[in-house]
Amino acid sequence: MAAPACRLPSAIRSAARSFKSYPALRATRVAAAAQRSFSASTKWQIKTTEMKEDDLLSLKVNQSRLMEDTHHTCQWGTGERWGDAPTETGMKRLALSDTDKQARDWFVEATQALGCHTTVDAMGNIFAVRPGLKNDKAPTFVGSHLDTQPTGGRYDGILGVTAGVEMLKVLADNWVETEYPVGVVNWTNEEGARFPMSMVSSGVWAGSIPLETAHSLQEVGSGKATMAEELKRIGYLGETPASYEAMPMAAHFELHIEQGPLLEMSNKKVGVVKGVQAYKWLTVKVKGRDTHTGTTDLKSRADALLTASKMILHSHRVATASSALASTGILNLKPGSTNTVPGEVTFSLDIRAPQNETVVRVTNQIKDDFAKIAAGEDVLHSNQDCTLGLPCSVSITEDFDSPATTFHSSCIDAVRQSAHSVLGSNSKNLVMDMVSGAGHDSVYASKRCPTSMIFVPCREGVSHNPREFCSPEDCAIGAQVLLQSVIRFDRMREVNRGELND
Amino acid sequence: MAAPACRLPSAIRSAARSFKSYPALRATRVAAAAQRSFSASTKWQIKTTEMKEDDLLSLKVNQSRLMEDTHHTCQWGTGERWGDAPTETGMKRLALSDTDKQARDWFVEATQALGCHTTVDAMGNIFAVRPGLKNDKAPTFVGSHLDTQPTGGRYDGILGVTAGVEMLKVLADNWVETEYPVGVVNWTNEEGARFPMSMVSSGVWAGSIPLETAHSLQEVGSGKATMAEELKRIGYLGETPASYEAMPMAAHFELHIEQGPLLEMSNKKVGVVKGVQAYKWLTVKVKGRDTHTGTTDLKSRADALLTASKMILHSHRVATASSALASTGILNLKPGSTNTVPGEVTFSLDIRAPQNETVVRVTNQIKDDFAKIAAGEDVLHSNQDCTLGLPCSVSITEDFDSPATTFHSSCIDAVRQSAHSVLGSNSKNLVMDMVSGAGHDSVYASKRCPTSMIFVPCREGVSHNPREFCSPEDCAIGAQVLLQSVIRFDRMREVNRGELND
Repeated sequence: MAAPACRLPSAIRSAARSFKSYPALRATRVAAAAQRSFSASTKWQIKTTEMKEDDLLSLKVNQSRLMEDTHHTCQWGTGERWGDAPTETGMKRLALSDTDKQARDWFVEATQALGCHTTVDAMGNIFAVRPGLKNDKAPTFVGSHLDTQPTGGRYDGILGVTAGVEMLKVLADNWVETEYPVGVVNWTNEEGARFPMSMVSSGVWAGSIPLETAHSLQEVGSGKATMAEELKRIGYLGETPASYEAMPMAAHFELHIEQGPLLEMSNKKVGVVKGVQAYKWLTVKVKGRDTHTGTTDLKSRADALLTASKMILHSHRVATASSALASTGILNLKPGSTNTVPGEVTFSLDIRAPQNETVVRVTNQIKDDFAKIAAGEDVLHSNQDCTLGLPCSVSITEDFDSPATTFHSSCIDAVRQSAHSVLGSNSKNLVMDMVSGAGHDSVYASKRCPTSMIFVPCREGVSHNPREFCSPEDCAIGAQVLLQSVIRFDRMREVNRGELND
Repeated sequence: MAAPACRLPSAIRSAARSFKSYPALRATRVAAAAQRSFSASTKWQIKTTEMKEDDLLSLKVNQSRLMEDTHHTCQWGTGERWGDAPTETGMKRLALSDTDKQARDWFVEATQALGCHTTVDAMGNIFAVRPGLKNDKAPTFVGSHLDTQPTGGRYDGILGVTAGVEMLKVLADNWVETEYPVGVVNWTNEEGARFPMSMVSSGVWAGSIPLETAHSLQEVGSGKATMAEELKRIGYLGETPASYEAMPMAAHFELHIEQGPLLEMSNKKVGVVKGVQAYKWLTVKVKGRDTHTGTTDLKSRADALLTASKMILHSHRVATASSALASTGILNLKPGSTNTVPGEVTFSLDIRAPQNETVVRVTNQIKDDFAKIAAGEDVLHSNQDCTLGLPCSVSITEDFDSPATTFHSSCIDAVRQSAHSVLGSNSKNLVMDMVSGAGHDSVYASKRCPTSMIFVPCREGVSHNPREFCSPEDCAIGAQVLLQSVIRFDRMREVNRGELND
């Protein structure tokens, strides 16, 4: 019986935004629903617990509308062009930038127009909640992020949010009444690209990262702004505490492109994500001595960049030996002149593996070995055919630690059932269980509520790149699975009262 | 009879600035000299050809004044502090910056006050000329540069200019009359740190670099200004053509810190510089593909930074094998995010060796090998213990080529004789012949006139570093050798007329 509030008089819409006033709203919504004349649907007022499998299947995501919304939001923060078509550009929408504000404003307007109550917390996370039948319980959320990498694409994060909005639209179009409220959340600075801590705002929500730490994060690059300053500047420093206690969730589902090649390589359509691999982020600072390139013989140099090059290559070798991943994405050096041997190099190191123990072992080995390489010792042929120069020093800080995450069996089941339902008779060949290589806000969400994710293929596994691409069909399949997962979970909550409602 | 013009009435000072009006000036200068009452010197009006060895030795550089001038100029563009003493800071005076303008203004004022005529050419090179007896002939110049590295020291270039000013002061104090005019030149953007072509302005003067090329050089970093724009902005875009024809030189002497460890290591005081090693500057651009660090397995990556690390290490190995130097001082990558494998890395490569052939051979080998490394082939163990990823592409441009330089025997002789004279009885143990590892404006000067250089030790061989240091005693010894070299060359010119005066 959930009539879309956007079609109600403004007074009712206003009431719809106030979550607590829902019992009063319900009567007016029913009345309003009776006036409805523009829908051909016969399923209005259907409750999720009354739905049969066929009813679930008939709730259809509108692929065109989903893609229009997705690309519509990409007008804010458009990045590098890589093709001729209008949508063949990447994205550069750094968290809390002016363009991020525009995308946020769209999200608030779009969800409010669909009858949602929106809440902004102290990290700028935006929670849009559509009332259900039992509004004294926490909503079932879907969520992702609207911020992007500096040379990102149009799908990473964005698709998860627009699919959430599409879910709200399908529920509204079909007058679906959920047992419990459902919501869509846009998490702040998931990428960690501008403020160097990824998933920081879901981390604060989960109680894993102190608010003060997050608020005082300074942007990378030449600017000096902190998260708190930028939240305030763009008007998204909310008064609600950023906390799972102030904004509880019954579950968190996230649709995301895989960002890797596995689905595409194996011709699958949907990945049922059972967890996320462990990772650590380190910052390595190598100090040598600035000297003139022309007058300093090789043995009189403390060459910080040559040493860093050995370290980067070595980290790759250690990762290879341990079936782990080691990656350097940032490297800065000083002073930066063609004829000066750099005296200081700072670089990032991202270490990942499915098991926590592997990440810890690789990290410890790299820390030990880097100290030896800096001192001039040979480690795994690092000095082979080289001139031994003067020693450098190295300091390594651990910026971030994300242990391996295991998602919740109920959510995983909801996703798996939905994937098979949506993909039909051939679904056995189109669905696979996966572990996510990348961190997502679902990692932190999973610390405080049942969680799972849905992966869809992206072309050549390319992500964090303007050319990132997921076909409209695959986007729609993912959104369809997301929608069903939320409804299935809503039904599970009703069937297993107590167990999934705490 | 060269009275310091600063002590003459302004009409005479004005005349002194006009080189062409010298015959008229000479009479007034003699008259003015007669009024001189504050000098205790008995050597006034002495001609260089009349000087005996004792006379040469009695022309004493004022060490305190030299150091005061040197540090005085360092008030403009003061860099990083490394010690507590007032002069224990580095320098950051990039070419044609506001602080470079201030240092230039000082140079013009100081030399004009000493009776020099100053000319600024189309590259902003400033030539300060003190008249001699025969002013229809080209001056004997000393020169160096006032611009510095972004994290440079107080001696590189600066000492060569302040020692030139000190030479003018000693000549003035002692009323020395040179046979031919002598000059001091401040060359623009020697470092190539702001506008990426080192020694570019002496290069234009020598006819080796087209004026248009130099004028259109764009500054490195985030700014977009060209040399021509900046020359105009700070008021140093002169009308005189930047050319050895418009501003001929009879010789070019340059005092410089060694910028390497050899003099200090062998307990020498003066290096007689017989030439400069060859070098090339390359820019290497590696293209891979931006991908997510967490979701892209090692074999599915085209990691531009891992590839660049292999290349930097490889260039060091090739240099080691060839007794050459290979150095990377600049490295930039895109997009620059902890969890994105860089898709593009650009780095500089500086290759040097005493022989041209060695530089050519090393450069060719590196070009061949870099292409192989990018393609994923193993070169000198580059892939040992690595995971073979996807190929990258590489493009290499040669930005700059400075063949090996041999200085002129007459200038070398002048420097060697002066060094032994200044250092006295133990000089055999204190003077050594050297080849410069670094490029200097003397390289281009030597293409158009007899040239040599004087090296003095710098602590631990450190240069292009705020801690660069040359003791006041060593600075003064160098300045003393410079002064004598100019006088000895002036005498040689008179003795060998025709041969050294073309």
